[in-house]
Amino acid sequence: MVDALRAAMNDNGIDWFVIFSQDPHLSEYTAKCDKYREYFSQFTGSAGTLLVGVDEAYLWTDSRYFIQAEHELEGTGISLMRSGMAGVATLYDFLCEHIWEGQKIAFDLMSISFASYEKLRRRLPQSVEIEDGAKILKSTAGEVGKRQFNEIVAVPEKYAGRSVADKLSDIRKRIKKDILYDQSYSYIISDLTSIMWTFNLRGGDIEYVPVAYAYAVITGYGATLYLSKRSLSDEAKKTLDDEGIVVKEYSLFYKDLDDIATDIVIADPDKNNSRILSVFADRGDLARCSDAAIITKYIKNKAEIDGMRDAHLKDAVTMIKFIKTVKEAAASGSLGDEYTTGKMLDDARIADGSCCPSFETICAYRENSAIVHYTAKEGEAKKIEPESFLLVDSGGQYRFTGTTDITRTILLGEATEEEKSVYTAVLKGNLRLMDTIFPEGYKGALLDGIAEQPLWEKGYFCGHGIGHGVGHYLSVHESEARISRASSEGEAAIRTGVIVSNEPGVYNEGKFGVRLENLLLTVSAKSIDGNRMCRFEPLTLVPFDKDAIDFLELSEKEIGILKKYYGLIWEKVSPLLDEDDKKWLKETIDIK
Amino acid sequence: MVDALRAAMNDNGIDWFVIFSQDPHLSEYTAKCDKYREYFSQFTGSAGTLLVGVDEAYLWTDSRYFIQAEHELEGTGISLMRSGMAGVATLYDFLCEHIWEGQKIAFDLMSISFASYEKLRRRLPQSVEIEDGAKILKSTAGEVGKRQFNEIVAVPEKYAGRSVADKLSDIRKRIKKDILYDQSYSYIISDLTSIMWTFNLRGGDIEYVPVAYAYAVITGYGATLYLSKRSLSDEAKKTLDDEGIVVKEYSLFYKDLDDIATDIVIADPDKNNSRILSVFADRGDLARCSDAAIITKYIKNKAEIDGMRDAHLKDAVTMIKFIKTVKEAAASGSLGDEYTTGKMLDDARIADGSCCPSFETICAYRENSAIVHYTAKEGEAKKIEPESFLLVDSGGQYRFTGTTDITRTILLGEATEEEKSVYTAVLKGNLRLMDTIFPEGYKGALLDGIAEQPLWEKGYFCGHGIGHGVGHYLSVHESEARISRASSEGEAAIRTGVIVSNEPGVYNEGKFGVRLENLLLTVSAKSIDGNRMCRFEPLTLVPFDKDAIDFLELSEKEIGILKKYYGLIWEKVSPLLDEDDKKWLKETIDIK
Repeated sequence: MVDALRAAMNDNGIDWFVIFSQDPHLSEYTAKCDKYREYFSQFTGSAGTLLVGVDEAYLWTDSRYFIQAEHELEGTGISLMRSGMAGVATLYDFLCEHIWEGQKIAFDLMSISFASYEKLRRRLPQSVEIEDGAKILKSTAGEVGKRQFNEIVAVPEKYAGRSVADKLSDIRKRIKKDILYDQSYSYIISDLTSIMWTFNLRGGDIEYVPVAYAYAVITGYGATLYLSKRSLSDEAKKTLDDEGIVVKEYSLFYKDLDDIATDIVIADPDKNNSRILSVFADRGDLARCSDAAIITKYIKNKAEIDGMRDAHLKDAVTMIKFIKTVKEAAASGSLGDEYTTGKMLDDARIADGSCCPSFETICAYRENSAIVHYTAKEGEAKKIEPESFLLVDSGGQYRFTGTTDITRTILLGEATEEEKSVYTAVLKGNLRLMDTIFPEGYKGALLDGIAEQPLWEKGYFCGHGIGHGVGHYLSVHESEARISRASSEGEAAIRTGVIVSNEPGVYNEGKFGVRLENLLLTVSAKSIDGNRMCRFEPLTLVPFDKDAIDFLELSEKEIGILKKYYGLIWEKVSPLLDEDDKKWLKETIDIK
Repeated sequence: MVDALRAAMNDNGIDWFVIFSQDPHLSEYTAKCDKYREYFSQFTGSAGTLLVGVDEAYLWTDSRYFIQAEHELEGTGISLMRSGMAGVATLYDFLCEHIWEGQKIAFDLMSISFASYEKLRRRLPQSVEIEDGAKILKSTAGEVGKRQFNEIVAVPEKYAGRSVADKLSDIRKRIKKDILYDQSYSYIISDLTSIMWTFNLRGGDIEYVPVAYAYAVITGYGATLYLSKRSLSDEAKKTLDDEGIVVKEYSLFYKDLDDIATDIVIADPDKNNSRILSVFADRGDLARCSDAAIITKYIKNKAEIDGMRDAHLKDAVTMIKFIKTVKEAAASGSLGDEYTTGKMLDDARIADGSCCPSFETICAYRENSAIVHYTAKEGEAKKIEPESFLLVDSGGQYRFTGTTDITRTILLGEATEEEKSVYTAVLKGNLRLMDTIFPEGYKGALLDGIAEQPLWEKGYFCGHGIGHGVGHYLSVHESEARISRASSEGEAAIRTGVIVSNEPGVYNEGKFGVRLENLLLTVSAKSIDGNRMCRFEPLTLVPFDKDAIDFLELSEKEIGILKKYYGLIWEKVSPLLDEDDKKWLKETIDIK
């Protein structure tokens, strides 16, 4: 595949070609039409960057994908660059070391954020020319590139909780805070989840995330949406009409950018691609902002919270039945393989009311559970035996009401001492974070240590963030607020209404991994002396695996937290279960 | 005072004059010659900014100083702006709202970091002219402005642990990592502690911090130091000569800047003032770096660590004797006031081998202990009674060996339930952080929650950072690494050799405050599966107040940590005490 690209590079005098994995909206998950990197490299992981030189080619990906990438890159002649490993240069460092004065580099300007573009431009020698590689990609990548547009529907206000007019008015107020005089402005949004949320729309253009391709431009007096007009449902069309939103064809967006005549253009340089913002930055019209400060979708309103609670009740029923089935199959010797077991869960979730998974289910057995983003392939998946751990990380989209994301690590057979020790440490982390009280408005990084400390005490650490934000019937990974040591200045604070995951994990390579993930809703706690404090309400209502817990290692306090959680599960979920499942649940949560 | 400034403003057509509190090296503590803000506002706090308009004047300061500022600003006509309080604009926001197109604003370009200057310049309308106010300040501020230069001495290599040549070679290696080609560079350092550390020098120009006024320019092949040449001791002169350092007069630095002819100038925009860097930035020659990435003084070497341990042993003896004296005075009814008690400690520390305090001692009784940066004034200080808390935060500089910083809150009389509850919560936070294991290279913010959680559980939080870096016979506040929710991207990670304070505190306004502060040295912990883990070794070896602890609230684990700490105190400090003090220590640390 790379050969066709090299030929085009040669024709155009291009020395280096970079293929990023993001789409023009910088989406985390992308549709087939944007999978150029996959097409040229054969590597199917969600994160990775391909660099093609005249004689050599390299693919950068992170530790989640090392094993998969080794396998998939075999025979392609592409060298694997293991990001984050000692001695492995980053793409930028590598480029700066290998590119010569006067060489030409190309990439699709729409596949890189403006912030990253600026960083790269600053680091490359001035004599290096950057060319937009979009056309070359399209012409050499065959069937990739044909964008599909699916139906766009309106979210009824009873689920959205707020009207579009209300959200727009709030957004304009927030923008006003950041601009100084009576400047006219255009606020550009490319992030699909932000656009969907703002305009109370949902689509089906990207797997796992109910979004439609769109761009939005909001000014002080109006708003224009660029999308596939004929994909709009009647309801959606009517809502937009009623709200006075100008709707234009998706394909007109880049042309219309030239006509923007407001004093300034406001946009988040991390959330808009470099083709959109370069022009405005060059002419000094760009005012940088953080989308999280303006579009507050990460703070859920009452309707969204009610919907999320409802979705999680449905999800709990599915998960409890699933865990029971797996544990019983282990006892009766009728376990399937990772793929069939994962599929069984996916099917059950749909049967129980979910419209689709919120991400690709991870069903990973034994040593595969130590691979953070493992995907079992049909026919190649590992057979599950009645011993060791089965890690299942999955979630569902529930139409209009919410998005779920849960990980349970299920013990099959008898636990070894090491298995119990690791499981219990991870559980301690999960419980301590679930129970903590903290001041409203703190950033999540401050809570990371609370979940991680029990792991540290045993010499482990969690290789990934402890928690990510979660959208309301949107992306299961919402970037604004999170609980992660990779804290950034633009990061949103944790406050009442914010939903984050709580998913400490330990991965013993070659042996097993344990991750326990609940979604947590931030609610108010008692205030003392006027200090506004918060605590978490668990949205996820599924028990942990009693057989894997070393109860002697839990403190009295931790057992108290567990009991309280189990009390909540019983109260909320047991009425929805049939007698058999209810009996199983009762036994599982009975910890004396 | 402001009137004289207003007259000069009028003569020069200046509408607004800002007086920052930093010196040209952006030092935290400043000498009298740089205290323009204090001179014009009468406000003596360490942090504050004065804005003088044609008819109005404002002083911004933070919560540590609200009460003091109210008092000191009385009758000056200057309005107090309480930074961080709801509805109080920041200086920048205020300026942007109040300054008109075409107005002129002045400030001393040397008193603001280039990073802050850039931020302000971007936010002000383009038609607003910024004028360098340095000359006006000097001409109107009478005796302020006359810089004093004191003796500069060389730190013997056995205390510094590394030669100047070795440090310079390391610095050049680190710079090399950040520049791309064979560019010639000048690396500019204005931060006095960084210069002193790099060149193994110490001075006496600023109270509390043994630094001398200097600038340094390091190139790929040499280094130039600008300082008061005649202040150099023979030893220091010889060291610099031997190392081939070019030494020039302090006053020539700004003139010489114009002659810098390297391809690029490298400097930390947060650590160099705007007069230094504006020119290079304007001509595109400025490469921004973080000093912490290049000058690694925050990672202590063996000699520095040995010195710090030694200084802390001396300090522990002083502190133990002091606490015993205060507790006994409470029992016998012979307590003094805050000022005399603080002075007694300062004198004792000097008598025991310290050369000067490392900051102004805080000796705060009862409700004054709730004021984080309280200073008792002679004659106006509160009489100490045999009840409630006395909070004492103090430290010493120990010639060549180290710098100490300790806070103990001493209970006088019987504790109320609330006093015990708060003291115990703060102690729990201190103990948990002291005992934690964590992965090497994590940022301190991740550890903040571990110390704060016991406070949060009672509805309190710590209004300041949990920990700051500490210099080796340098500034007691070293900015590189810290344990604080105000984490920043440039912040250095916590790794073996880093020293931080551990000082959770709770402040119940109008009642009392409790802060317990130890310095901690980061050391290696056992590694599991190749994960490099760290733990802390307490440098501070002084017991907490047994009478204020509610032992029933401590977990078994916390009692274990306390016992281990007390064992260490006994082992290290008791041999240095006389019989009486040893007996008192034994009783104090006897917790069964």
